[in-house]
Amino acid sequence: MIVVMKAGSTKQELDGLISKINGVGLQTHVSEGIERTIVGIIGDERNFDARKIEVLPGVERVIRVLQPFKLASREFKQEPTVITLPNGLTIGAGGIVIMAGPCAIEDQRSIIETALAVKDAGAHILRGGAYKPRTSPYTFQGLGVRGLEMLAIAREESGLPIVTEVMSPSDVGLVSEFADILQVGARNMQNFTLLHSLGKVKKPILLKRGMMCTVEEWLMAAEHIMASGNHEVILCERGIRTFETYTRNTMDLSAIPLVKQLSHLPVIADPSHATGSSALVPPMAKASIAAGADGLMIEVHLDPENALSDGAQSLKPAVFAEMMQDINIIASAVGRYLEGFPKCQAG
Amino acid sequence: MIVVMKAGSTKQELDGLISKINGVGLQTHVSEGIERTIVGIIGDERNFDARKIEVLPGVERVIRVLQPFKLASREFKQEPTVITLPNGLTIGAGGIVIMAGPCAIEDQRSIIETALAVKDAGAHILRGGAYKPRTSPYTFQGLGVRGLEMLAIAREESGLPIVTEVMSPSDVGLVSEFADILQVGARNMQNFTLLHSLGKVKKPILLKRGMMCTVEEWLMAAEHIMASGNHEVILCERGIRTFETYTRNTMDLSAIPLVKQLSHLPVIADPSHATGSSALVPPMAKASIAAGADGLMIEVHLDPENALSDGAQSLKPAVFAEMMQDINIIASAVGRYLEGFPKCQAG
Amino acid sequence: MIVVMKAGSTKQELDGLISKINGVGLQTHVSEGIERTIVGIIGDERNFDARKIEVLPGVERVIRVLQPFKLASREFKQEPTVITLPNGLTIGAGGIVIMAGPCAIEDQRSIIETALAVKDAGAHILRGGAYKPRTSPYTFQGLGVRGLEMLAIAREESGLPIVTEVMSPSDVGLVSEFADILQVGARNMQNFTLLHSLGKVKKPILLKRGMMCTVEEWLMAAEHIMASGNHEVILCERGIRTFETYTRNTMDLSAIPLVKQLSHLPVIADPSHATGSSALVPPMAKASIAAGADGLMIEVHLDPENALSDGAQSLKPAVFAEMMQDINIIASAVGRYLEGFPKCQAG
Amino acid sequence: MIVVMKAGSTKQELDGLISKINGVGLQTHVSEGIERTIVGIIGDERNFDARKIEVLPGVERVIRVLQPFKLASREFKQEPTVITLPNGLTIGAGGIVIMAGPCAIEDQRSIIETALAVKDAGAHILRGGAYKPRTSPYTFQGLGVRGLEMLAIAREESGLPIVTEVMSPSDVGLVSEFADILQVGARNMQNFTLLHSLGKVKKPILLKRGMMCTVEEWLMAAEHIMASGNHEVILCERGIRTFETYTRNTMDLSAIPLVKQLSHLPVIADPSHATGSSALVPPMAKASIAAGADGLMIEVHLDPENALSDGAQSLKPAVFAEMMQDINIIASAVGRYLEGFPKCQAG
Repeated sequence: MIVVMKAGSTKQELDGLISKINGVGLQTHVSEGIERTIVGIIGDERNFDARKIEVLPGVERVIRVLQPFKLASREFKQEPTVITLPNGLTIGAGGIVIMAGPCAIEDQRSIIETALAVKDAGAHILRGGAYKPRTSPYTFQGLGVRGLEMLAIAREESGLPIVTEVMSPSDVGLVSEFADILQVGARNMQNFTLLHSLGKVKKPILLKRGMMCTVEEWLMAAEHIMASGNHEVILCERGIRTFETYTRNTMDLSAIPLVKQLSHLPVIADPSHATGSSALVPPMAKASIAAGADGLMIEVHLDPENALSDGAQSLKPAVFAEMMQDINIIASAVGRYLEGFPKCQAG
Repeated sequence: MIVVMKAGSTKQELDGLISKINGVGLQTHVSEGIERTIVGIIGDERNFDARKIEVLPGVERVIRVLQPFKLASREFKQEPTVITLPNGLTIGAGGIVIMAGPCAIEDQRSIIETALAVKDAGAHILRGGAYKPRTSPYTFQGLGVRGLEMLAIAREESGLPIVTEVMSPSDVGLVSEFADILQVGARNMQNFTLLHSLGKVKKPILLKRGMMCTVEEWLMAAEHIMASGNHEVILCERGIRTFETYTRNTMDLSAIPLVKQLSHLPVIADPSHATGSSALVPPMAKASIAAGADGLMIEVHLDPENALSDGAQSLKPAVFAEMMQDINIIASAVGRYLEGFPKCQAG
Repeated sequence: MIVVMKAGSTKQELDGLISKINGVGLQTHVSEGIERTIVGIIGDERNFDARKIEVLPGVERVIRVLQPFKLASREFKQEPTVITLPNGLTIGAGGIVIMAGPCAIEDQRSIIETALAVKDAGAHILRGGAYKPRTSPYTFQGLGVRGLEMLAIAREESGLPIVTEVMSPSDVGLVSEFADILQVGARNMQNFTLLHSLGKVKKPILLKRGMMCTVEEWLMAAEHIMASGNHEVILCERGIRTFETYTRNTMDLSAIPLVKQLSHLPVIADPSHATGSSALVPPMAKASIAAGADGLMIEVHLDPENALSDGAQSLKPAVFAEMMQDINIIASAVGRYLEGFPKCQAG
Repeated sequence: MIVVMKAGSTKQELDGLISKINGVGLQTHVSEGIERTIVGIIGDERNFDARKIEVLPGVERVIRVLQPFKLASREFKQEPTVITLPNGLTIGAGGIVIMAGPCAIEDQRSIIETALAVKDAGAHILRGGAYKPRTSPYTFQGLGVRGLEMLAIAREESGLPIVTEVMSPSDVGLVSEFADILQVGARNMQNFTLLHSLGKVKKPILLKRGMMCTVEEWLMAAEHIMASGNHEVILCERGIRTFETYTRNTMDLSAIPLVKQLSHLPVIADPSHATGSSALVPPMAKASIAAGADGLMIEVHLDPENALSDGAQSLKPAVFAEMMQDINIIASAVGRYLEGFPKCQAG
């Protein structure tokens, strides 16, 4: 941490600062410039709130030197984290993994049919929401535990592992009995009570980036889960909020290679929520793989026109199947492969 | 709701749309323009998800006509909602109400002293956090239930009602035993499970605006609480996230008069979190009252330099007391008054 | 400037950095921490592009210590800049100054009538656009030089000095023959060629904040004008772009007291463009004065329903006159006064 | 255009609206709902400012139905616009085109060497700035006309067409004597005087998206150029401003397929400015092609560590050459090809 003193700060203020820093067991290193005096703090600054220094008299600004996340950082752990599901499927090991399914589980028949359809197209994991965060209290809120049961039956029928959202700490126990991967939605990325509960779970967590959250905050949310005991976190970019209104969100695709630099955690992309428009999903899915994503989460619905939720951004199975072929080609073009697909020759 | 058909959409597509709308019991009204055909949907569109229409063939765009919130709207209820606390204090009735206290409760002595100091300066309600949402898992997370107990003792000593944050549905019961007003923090504004729990509580809810949330979403969050049974919601503007970095957030002060137009709920302002800088709190507090706020929430700390949380934005009691005098003058200047203060003559 | 070296950077990389810094005549000060080595650069960093250091091998991050603006800074010049117009009116000297008039000049009669109406209500300066930046090429683009002539006649008739926008370096000469204050619109805040031309003019410049610009960039735009020779710059906050859609822009009112800390330049507020809605103008005008603005720019139109531009945000003269009375009261409440008004007693 | 009347609006207000609309030669179509009356306006709304209706009594909201851009729209012109340079190179015809070179022209030798190096790697067009918009007045502002002359010599030596920025209407004549494509920078995207000047030029215009501009405003800026007479516009996505700070801007890659839907104009991507970091350029360049871009603009510098501008985001020639090979493979994977490269087999 570096402290910049105000122009005209006094010797007494400097001494006060130094004694405060020494008081918490850290060392200082003073450098007097022409217009400003700078104080370097030597030691691990992560347990130390920068805002506590900012408030001292004579202090102009405090600058952190280290990233505030540790367990999630590439510096802490060089080799990529690989997550292995009970059926042996790995995420983050090199192969591209696709999660697909409806926004919300609607009934037993359709979730089974969708599971079989996406499996047929080559998807590896079935997604489906039983608990739905909805902006309006007057629209469909999900089937709850009945939805989880339907999802489990669809897993049995299709053989696909399942990922589903959990919205509340009190549901974590229940959802983790059913799901292979537990999802934290964008609106809950900073629901710290929920994150701490998920730190106690022995299943991987899919952590969506909050729509107003910086990459640093996203990695700090992962850090909350990891510091609570669960190191199996999969990051998922799903678009951030900007002034642009044509698309539902703005997909921050540069976050993919950036997170790969900063962290060892696997990162996937969700172009369905990021764009909100089925026509934009295939190009952005391809772009995500080209940018280095380890996988995709895609909304697929048998009959988008009659979906109870998010039909406008859902692909029909046939479109999804076609996209999977294209993804396989793109994967090869960046030196990777789509899990379970014949490796195609590129270049 | 209005549906704009694509240029070149077919008669069959139009018929499909109309039959779908009729199928849910709503009527249509078709208007053929030169470049586009427009279909008006007649009936209450609130229970109807616009995105379900967007996905139909031939549809270019769907536009909502009514505001999606109902119970929270000025149209539904003309007269302002007035909230009365057990000690008879009213919020939203015309008098300006001030909530003040530390960001986090640190120990019994300091919370009592702060309570007495802010009361002395004229504050009406004591604030203090027992559960703290913190970006880093490595910094102080609040005292939890011990903090609630300290807060209750400070209420007894000072006579001030108390407002404190609740972060999880499972804590709602406990927190509502202690607090006079339950606060939903910005990061939980769209924690719908929490909102629904608060709908069952018989105490007023202070609902902070999410830092990435639109005014419409904020009112929809209030709608979630109200539709679950609790109509006593106080809105609190605390800054939104923008690209500006000098301030912690960007205080959207125009949201105050805007919400007054759109809703009957009382609305207060929190310049401490909005700016993150104690030097900016007094001018923005005055500006908030000038813009029409029904109250303020202000962070006050006996010794900001040693605060465990958010010292940089906390006022010392003496500065707070001085600001209260200024607020009283501004209140008069906009034809209002600070609760319990001698009315001053303006103009 | 402070340079943070990467974890694991080599001695050779450090030496390379130091020799590069020494090469431009600056000194260094090295501080070795546990996880990082930090290099302080001693000397005036303003002429030195931080990005040139960032690119060196072994460098993780470069942090500026000094504000990049100098002439515009409070540190450079403590006392507030006061701008005096030919008629003796001062801006920034303590009295609040109001600029009012139509968005666009439409014809000779209406600009004279508006000038007389706003003067009658107590306004000090007449505003009116002859050159209009319009998003669409198909709407009214302003009267150009004919508009300037009409404005000059309205000045003669009313005695009010005039402020008007200039959009192009090639128009600077012409516009400065007519205007008492030249305005740079938000969309041109970083039109550096225009800023440099205005640095050669001997008239005050009203510099609107760009809707996507940080406060630092705004002050840097002022610095461009000042470094080119003209130190008479008036800053004007007019709202920034965010995700909120109810209002035209989001008025960043905390920028007012912030800029007062950072700079000696006078700063005014434009609630008409910031909100886009006439109903929100009076509350936000009052809030602006309460926050410390030195003046206001307000759109007034004789007949907003038939305005050629921005009628929705224009006040009718009677509403404006009433607002002026309220502004006078608010000004007193913050220890200031509205130029030319009887000082009212507050408190 | 659709007008939503307020709840409780009167018959007289409705009549006033209709007569105003009829007055400008447009027809209306009234639809009475349960909670609101809706008025459709029939005819071309583009020459009609929606804000003029908004201000009428009884009007709640005005909604445009048609896109405000016409000449730039896919609806107006189905087939893609193909731009042909003097040397026969086409942009927008299917082949991917790469523009590469330094941020700023620094001297004759280096611009020639860079031109030869990027040509050798397969680039098609040489970029280089002679006029540089710089945030600070104290850093390198470009070589001006001397830079243009150096660029022209580099064209002669390399055979590559050149693209360079023009910042002011008064420079348009001069720059168009030298450049094959004239570039409008992000900060000038709404410099309407400049856009109108470029409408008179007989050379293609590269129009960068403003960092705070919506896709609609970007297409409207193109419309300004086209409506002034020049239909040869190439759009360039270069990142928008958000709250994220790790990257210089946030690259809005979904704008690429979106603009392809909305417009017939070619669109390219600039990952150098969008990310600000050379390590992120190759992945985002590949992602841009996967998303459907017609080309790329890439900053390449012989010696980024000593660049006068933007070294941190510049690629060295060897890295650029390697990236070109990857781009060729990605192009094949999306059924396209890199101009002048052997078509590689994908799939």
